[in-house]
Amino acid sequence: MRDVSIIGVGQTPVGEHWGVSLRELALHAIQAALGDAGIQVEMLVIGNMLAGELSGQAHLGSLLADFAGLRGIEAVRVEAADASGGAALRYGYLAVAGGAVDFALVLGIEKFTDVVGSQRAAASATLLDADYEAAQGLTPAAQAALLMRRYMYEYQVDTSAFAGFSVNAHTNGAMNPNAMYRNRIKAEAFVKAPLIAPPVSLFDAAPEGDGAAALILTTTERARGVTNRPVRISASAVATDTLALHDRPDPLFLTAANISAQKAYQQAGVGPADLDLFELHDSFTILSALTLEACGFAGRGAGYELACEEGIGLKGKIPISTFGGLKARGHAGGATGVYQAVEATLQLRGQAGSNQVEEARIAMIQNIGGLGGTAFTHILEAID
Amino acid sequence: MRDVSIIGVGQTPVGEHWGVSLRELALHAIQAALGDAGIQVEMLVIGNMLAGELSGQAHLGSLLADFAGLRGIEAVRVEAADASGGAALRYGYLAVAGGAVDFALVLGIEKFTDVVGSQRAAASATLLDADYEAAQGLTPAAQAALLMRRYMYEYQVDTSAFAGFSVNAHTNGAMNPNAMYRNRIKAEAFVKAPLIAPPVSLFDAAPEGDGAAALILTTTERARGVTNRPVRISASAVATDTLALHDRPDPLFLTAANISAQKAYQQAGVGPADLDLFELHDSFTILSALTLEACGFAGRGAGYELACEEGIGLKGKIPISTFGGLKARGHAGGATGVYQAVEATLQLRGQAGSNQVEEARIAMIQNIGGLGGTAFTHILEAID
Repeated sequence: MRDVSIIGVGQTPVGEHWGVSLRELALHAIQAALGDAGIQVEMLVIGNMLAGELSGQAHLGSLLADFAGLRGIEAVRVEAADASGGAALRYGYLAVAGGAVDFALVLGIEKFTDVVGSQRAAASATLLDADYEAAQGLTPAAQAALLMRRYMYEYQVDTSAFAGFSVNAHTNGAMNPNAMYRNRIKAEAFVKAPLIAPPVSLFDAAPEGDGAAALILTTTERARGVTNRPVRISASAVATDTLALHDRPDPLFLTAANISAQKAYQQAGVGPADLDLFELHDSFTILSALTLEACGFAGRGAGYELACEEGIGLKGKIPISTFGGLKARGHAGGATGVYQAVEATLQLRGQAGSNQVEEARIAMIQNIGGLGGTAFTHILEAID
Repeated sequence: MRDVSIIGVGQTPVGEHWGVSLRELALHAIQAALGDAGIQVEMLVIGNMLAGELSGQAHLGSLLADFAGLRGIEAVRVEAADASGGAALRYGYLAVAGGAVDFALVLGIEKFTDVVGSQRAAASATLLDADYEAAQGLTPAAQAALLMRRYMYEYQVDTSAFAGFSVNAHTNGAMNPNAMYRNRIKAEAFVKAPLIAPPVSLFDAAPEGDGAAALILTTTERARGVTNRPVRISASAVATDTLALHDRPDPLFLTAANISAQKAYQQAGVGPADLDLFELHDSFTILSALTLEACGFAGRGAGYELACEEGIGLKGKIPISTFGGLKARGHAGGATGVYQAVEATLQLRGQAGSNQVEEARIAMIQNIGGLGGTAFTHILEAID
C-alpha cells in the first residue's frame, strides 16, 4: 500500500450555530482545507452520525459534493456513531493508500442544533443497542454512569479522581479559538457540578456542538511536492466490540480501543512511550481513564492517576485533549474524529500556538463510537 | 491495485418481515454468504439507508459484527441513500483491491416494517434535498413524476410507453423465490393501475421491502483456490450529481449514471454491446428509460423503445431486472445494490435457474441513490 500524508486541514469553531445550515457549515471546513492544500480532489468522504435524524437529510455525499463546488466526484457518507469522523479518515486512507485516488477530501460534519429536546434525545438513543438498551431507557450518559460507578467501586475512588481530565480539557480549550468552552475550571468546581446521570456530572460529560472539520490526503510522495510540512499517517487501525455494554465480559476494559491501538502501534513501529501526544475520545471522563488503560499508558485501575498536569498536561507525560478535547473544544458528533486529526496535524506542523506540545513529532488519535463499540486509531508523524 | 472477485453470496427473500428484527435479517444473509464462500472475513462493510430513522438503530458496524459472530473485526456502515448497497460494495472492493484486507464481507440491509405511515414517509423524505425539496412536500415518487411527465412531453409518448419495464420485471420476478412480487402482469393492467403521483402509477414504482443480501470478496488470486466459479469485479466506478432535481441543467440526463458507466466501461475494457445483462436501478420505470439512455443502450428519448421482450427480456438485446429488479424482486433500500451483485453473480455462475440469461459472461450492475444523486457502477465477469 502507498504511504499517505495529510496536506491540508480546515475546521469551524464548535458551538451552537443556529444561523448556519448543515451544508454551509460543511462548506466552511471544506474551503479551509482545500485552501490550505491548494489542490483539487477526486473523492469526498463524509463522516456524519445523525443528519438524517436531526436535519432530515441523508445522502450527504451527493448534497455536499455539489454544494462545495465538487459536483460529479465520488462522494459517500460513512457512519459509526460518534466514531464516524475516524471512519471517514479510514476510508480516505484506504482509497489513497490502495491507489484508487491520489487526492481525497475527508469531512466530518454534525449539526445538532436543527432540533432540540426529545427529538434530540431520541436521535442520541439510536447510538445504543436499540432493542436491548435504548428500549429500556438507557442513554449514552447513563451508560457512562454505569461504567463510572463500577470503576469507582472496583478501584475505591470517588468522583474527584476524574476531575483532572476535565480541568486539563478546559485549560487547553481556553486557548483554542475554535473551542466551544473557553473557560478554565478548578477541581473544586468539578466536584460541585450538577449531576446529569449520577455519578456523571456536567463536567464529566462532553457537550454536543455543531461543527465541521476537513482533511486533504494524498500520497506522501506527492505531498512533498505540495507542502513542506506533510504529516504522515503511519498507522490506520480499527476494531469493534459489542454495542451493548451488558454483553462485554469485562465492561471496564475497552477491547476495541485496546485492539485498534495495538494494531496501530505495530503498523507504526512505536509504543505508548514514543507518543508526544494522544487525542483520545473524552466524551466522558470515565472513557479517558479507561482509554489510557486500554492503550498502554496506565495499568488497570490506574488511568485516573494520570489526570493531572504532570500526567496529561501539555508538558506532561502524555498530553491529551491538547485543544480542549471533546469536553472543552466540544463534541461535534461525527466530526469529532476529523477534529482530532486536524488538531494533531497542527501540533505536528508546529502550528498549535498556545496549545503547542513542544517538539511534537508523533501523535496518536483515537475516535470511539459510543462507549467503545467501535474504535478507530491512527498514528500521525511529522516528516522532514 | 489487486484484482478482486466475489466468492460467496447470500440473500433473504425481499418482503414484509414483520416478525424478524433488523439484526436477524442481516444474520440470515451473512450466514448464507459465509457458508457459500467457506472462509473467515477480516472486515464487514454495511450498506444501509435508514436504520436510524426506521429502527432507532445507528452504529450497525458494531452491532452486526457482534451479532454475526464476528466480534472485534473492522466494521462500518456506508450510506448513499438507496445506493448504499453499491457504496458498500465499492468500499469492500477498495479495501481488498488496495491490500488492506484479503477477505471482506459486504452486507446490504434494510428493515422498513419497523414503522409505518407518516414516520416512514418522513424517513423517505430524508433522501431528498431537505431544505429545498422535502421542505416543499416533494417525495421520491413526486420527483419521479416530474421526470416522467417531462419525458412524456419532450418525446411525445404516453404512460403506456413504460409498461414493458414493469411487465418484464414481473415476468422475471415470478420465477424468483426471493422476489417480493411473484405475479406476472400484462400491459393492459399496467395502464389501468392506480396513480400514486400522476403520471407515476403503482406499477411504475418499486415497492419498499425488508431484505438483506451479502457478498464475500477476496483477491482473484485467492479466489481461485477457494471456488471454481469466482466472479471477477472488472470495474468499480462512482459519480455524483446534484441532489436536488431543479439544480440539473438537463434533468432528463442522468449525469452520474452516465459518468460512472463510462468510467466502468473504460476500466473493464468493454462497451454496452459486450454486456450480457444489466441490473439497473428500476425504482421507477422512468429511471429505467433514462438509465438505458445514459449508459449507452439507447439514444436520448429512445430508452423506452427497449421496454419489450426483444429489448430487455432474458433473451433480449440487453436483459435487465433478470430476477425481477427493484420492481418485482422488491426495493430493499440500502440492500438493493448488494442484491444486484448477488443476482449478477448467480447469472455469471450459471446458477440463475429459470431466470438464467444464456451464456452470461459479463454483467453490469448500477445502483442509483434517489433520482440520480449518486451512481455506483460495477462490471462483473465470469472467469474460467
